[in-house]
Amino acid sequence: MRLNNSKLIIIIGCGRLGSELALKLSKAYNVVVLDKEESSFERLSKRNFTGFTRVIDTSDMAALKDVNIEKAHMVYIVTPDDNLNFMLAYGIKKLNSGVRIAARVNDPLKKSIFIKAGLNLFCPIEDSVMDLVEELEKEVVKYE
Amino acid sequence: MRLNNSKLIIIIGCGRLGSELALKLSKAYNVVVLDKEESSFERLSKRNFTGFTRVIDTSDMAALKDVNIEKAHMVYIVTPDDNLNFMLAYGIKKLNSGVRIAARVNDPLKKSIFIKAGLNLFCPIEDSVMDLVEELEKEVVKYE
Repeated sequence: MRLNNSKLIIIIGCGRLGSELALKLSKAYNVVVLDKEESSFERLSKRNFTGFTRVIDTSDMAALKDVNIEKAHMVYIVTPDDNLNFMLAYGIKKLNSGVRIAARVNDPLKKSIFIKAGLNLFCPIEDSVMDLVEELEKEVVKYE
Repeated sequence: MRLNNSKLIIIIGCGRLGSELALKLSKAYNVVVLDKEESSFERLSKRNFTGFTRVIDTSDMAALKDVNIEKAHMVYIVTPDDNLNFMLAYGIKKLNSGVRIAARVNDPLKKSIFIKAGLNLFCPIEDSVMDLVEELEKEVVKYE
């Protein structure tokens, strides 16, 4: 990962996934992490996070404009709430059609709704299932 | 995935991950899914699941013996509770050292404890972070 401070990366949701992503990306990029709860940032403050945090009402589009979402190179939407993630992805796409978005879908059954709306998404559970099936199919040395 | 009904696969935890995995694997293997809540199996009953389900107290090792954990080819431990997952992986390894185990660690900070105990694990959050960083680094066509 090369240092690229000119790129602004916004991460919405500072749970386990958002915080790990923020820690990793803040080494090379200009990272801003948003969450509605101040306490969520404890996951970052105890470790080597070098980006910025901001408590905002993530369901408020005006608040998102206020954090320069229009200047972001990429936005990761990784809250645990699929409905919020969908609304945010849809709304941010309207605000800034040029930004790259990765929205998390927690429930695989909701994936088709995201796809129909033309949203760029990733589904961690489906990815895990694929990995786990591979784990079974490769006949590795027996677990000791 | 070839049909291989002689292999018994046990999945502990029927949340989103466990149920998707069960649906996928039951097409080719003999699958038993365990959960402490009967209602968890609704994720399976509404779809094409062809394996077996069983409500058991997953923290009770005697109950696990009762579901032939010793005859399993592979056990997936995918509850949302890392402490339970750790205890189960450790306990099942003692019961049957030949079985293959994949235990889920939800909190990346706990990963080292699993590793120290010599447990085979997977960490969905770390995998997702890797995928998401790659997503940023590949300079694909801008999201439209």
